[in-house]
Amino acid sequence: MRHVISSSQYTKESLTPLFALTSKIKNDPSRYSKALQGKVIATLFYEPSTRTRLSFESAIQRLGASLISTENAKEVSSSVKGESLADTIRIIEGYADAIVMRHYDNDAADIASKISAVPIVNAGGGSGEHPTQSLLDCFTILEHRSSLDNLSIAAIGDLRYGRTVHSLVKMLSLYDGLTIYGVSLPGLELSEDYIRYIEEHGGRFIPCSTLAEVPGDVDVLYQTRTQRERMSVSEGEVKEIVINQVVLDGFANHTIVLHPLPRNQEIAPEVDRDLRALYFEQAKNGMWVRMALLYELFQEDR
Amino acid sequence: MRHVISSSQYTKESLTPLFALTSKIKNDPSRYSKALQGKVIATLFYEPSTRTRLSFESAIQRLGASLISTENAKEVSSSVKGESLADTIRIIEGYADAIVMRHYDNDAADIASKISAVPIVNAGGGSGEHPTQSLLDCFTILEHRSSLDNLSIAAIGDLRYGRTVHSLVKMLSLYDGLTIYGVSLPGLELSEDYIRYIEEHGGRFIPCSTLAEVPGDVDVLYQTRTQRERMSVSEGEVKEIVINQVVLDGFANHTIVLHPLPRNQEIAPEVDRDLRALYFEQAKNGMWVRMALLYELFQEDR
Amino acid sequence: MRHVISSSQYTKESLTPLFALTSKIKNDPSRYSKALQGKVIATLFYEPSTRTRLSFESAIQRLGASLISTENAKEVSSSVKGESLADTIRIIEGYADAIVMRHYDNDAADIASKISAVPIVNAGGGSGEHPTQSLLDCFTILEHRSSLDNLSIAAIGDLRYGRTVHSLVKMLSLYDGLTIYGVSLPGLELSEDYIRYIEEHGGRFIPCSTLAEVPGDVDVLYQTRTQRERMSVSEGEVKEIVINQVVLDGFANHTIVLHPLPRNQEIAPEVDRDLRALYFEQAKNGMWVRMALLYELFQEDR
Repeated sequence: MRHVISSSQYTKESLTPLFALTSKIKNDPSRYSKALQGKVIATLFYEPSTRTRLSFESAIQRLGASLISTENAKEVSSSVKGESLADTIRIIEGYADAIVMRHYDNDAADIASKISAVPIVNAGGGSGEHPTQSLLDCFTILEHRSSLDNLSIAAIGDLRYGRTVHSLVKMLSLYDGLTIYGVSLPGLELSEDYIRYIEEHGGRFIPCSTLAEVPGDVDVLYQTRTQRERMSVSEGEVKEIVINQVVLDGFANHTIVLHPLPRNQEIAPEVDRDLRALYFEQAKNGMWVRMALLYELFQEDR
Repeated sequence: MRHVISSSQYTKESLTPLFALTSKIKNDPSRYSKALQGKVIATLFYEPSTRTRLSFESAIQRLGASLISTENAKEVSSSVKGESLADTIRIIEGYADAIVMRHYDNDAADIASKISAVPIVNAGGGSGEHPTQSLLDCFTILEHRSSLDNLSIAAIGDLRYGRTVHSLVKMLSLYDGLTIYGVSLPGLELSEDYIRYIEEHGGRFIPCSTLAEVPGDVDVLYQTRTQRERMSVSEGEVKEIVINQVVLDGFANHTIVLHPLPRNQEIAPEVDRDLRALYFEQAKNGMWVRMALLYELFQEDR
Repeated sequence: MRHVISSSQYTKESLTPLFALTSKIKNDPSRYSKALQGKVIATLFYEPSTRTRLSFESAIQRLGASLISTENAKEVSSSVKGESLADTIRIIEGYADAIVMRHYDNDAADIASKISAVPIVNAGGGSGEHPTQSLLDCFTILEHRSSLDNLSIAAIGDLRYGRTVHSLVKMLSLYDGLTIYGVSLPGLELSEDYIRYIEEHGGRFIPCSTLAEVPGDVDVLYQTRTQRERMSVSEGEVKEIVINQVVLDGFANHTIVLHPLPRNQEIAPEVDRDLRALYFEQAKNGMWVRMALLYELFQEDR
């Protein structure tokens, strides 16, 4: 039995068919509208995430499965009576054929997968893994570039704590010829561990202090939310890294702008109308990727 | 593409087929049980309203559509991370084929409709519009009178802040020969704006201070919840306007009693058994009206 | 019309076909996957209970019915605006074909059943009835013993306030040759009322102070959660009654261990691997019993 716990469980070989399936589903979702008919899938969220939850719940139902849902498992479940996560999983697995879970503890999904009789899908949580995010990021890049090899990407903003950047960096490192420009805020640089990881996998990491240092023909600008409270220097001293129309006009026609969302001010609203702004398409791709993932989990011959 | 944002978007000409469709659905709901199969509809509630939400969610599913639901969007969504409403809508529209939303800001649904790629249905909120409420009010009157022309109705209670009364007054003003008796609590009278609106549309408004001043053959007693905290005079001085059996016995057999619910003490429980008490039927009609609305939104030829 | 309000509404004659139906559904659930198609069932929870709610919601959907759900009815519903339970039920019955409710007031389900036009299913609440719990307890025993007559069972822990024990004791008293060993914590003994009830129905009640006093060939060890705050003596003085592997090894191969869950420390995790530990199977049986119950409610010929 398979689970979806970590971005690092994927290889180039397992990603190719998954992304191919995602494309097929996106092109003709009605073909899959009864694929999981008769299945019941639970969403078990210990911390709120409306977007991720609704995306999974739409995916579940677009596959014809039924849904049982908790969006405040922490407050409303038996966990207030002292029940262990293991017990909760053993009970929910009795009601559902798969469990999509988000938990504030980094290793909760991993623990759950070790005892669950049904597939566990990690929907993120804590500061740890959020595998479906990096899958949708990579799928969105692939859709607009047809290959993930020889990619150049600028990772922007909070590279130290940003979970999505970490998972993305690792997944992209599976591919050849990767170049990452790290445009971080002071004190929020990518840690040495990740830089070493990239380089050991054959990629290049080039630290930058402004977007002006990034080549104009970079493939992807991957912007992240500025978490000012985490910066090491006071607000007045730092010029936030903002992508606005003037900035974007310095980049090529093939340069796409991604963002895991939600955003605050780090992408100006005017950019939304630029055809290179793909962050809402990226969010929607999350639904298609999750459909593909859930579909795959129930294919017996795999 | 169409949205349902305001009561004022309706004309006599658009209401007639909508109410006819509502009747058809109510008479034979099973005929519509697969009408929206394959569609996913989101309910996005920024303030709680169990009755309105469950009514929509039942309507959605009775049409065969799937449901993704948030009943505490304010607390659990990315809005706590500073995401704009516009961004939230752009993300949810990626997951759903229509969005039913309730928001504490009066103009939120209107803003959403201007940017959404899928239909927005305003499920009320704030002190502003609640279009499906006036639709179900009018449909209930129509069911028991077969015409909305030449209607006489007593609007009772809080006429100043009561959102449902305002929307109803405007919708009824579309019809000929309207007479409205305003039986308000002191300080909660209907504002001049609305009175002028009624008169400009050819209707009559007659202020009353007690139910005794309302003719016994009035068609409708539209009672509303007494919000004592909004009264301008102290509680001891005001005699609350209550409909009990003795009061109702002063009215004709064809006088029906409506209330948007929930109620407190302003309709005595004994009245529930009177055949003229139609407020629970009225609440149920909300589901049929919402089915008709949602069904219409997805008819391409319109 | 029928409701499910109390364990005491069942007789041996009505339980036999219900348990037979439960077995049939459990053996071949797909046969029932469209049994309630077109029905909408509401879950109306005034106090949280993720397990019970998800179990019902899975059951509802495995029967092909649609679901409208509230997990915080107390906070989010109109009850905050002063609406009575009776009014809430009269409104929800307009949207749903049955109402599964959990309420903090013991008699709320009973009150609801007296005014509801659709079946009410009591999903527990307060310190009162929780009929589906005793049904699933009895079904689990029956599955592993093929008869409920001549049963010996040790009820362990909090016998004074434990709702599940009370309902179970009453339901088992319907059967012949019952022997109950009451292994209670000090101050949490079974009350005289229940002992008299057992004896008047032909059963035997044998109070014990430790598990060592229970015969090794007892059929069932029914453990319950230790609610230390309710004990009459201070914590230091009481040795909690724990079932661990050493304790369980003192019992027969046919002795099964049940627990209504959630558990804290009163069953050691090591016991989970013992084939006699059936509490997770018991929890899962809750779903099958609830499917059978809901299915029965909609059979017209009854």
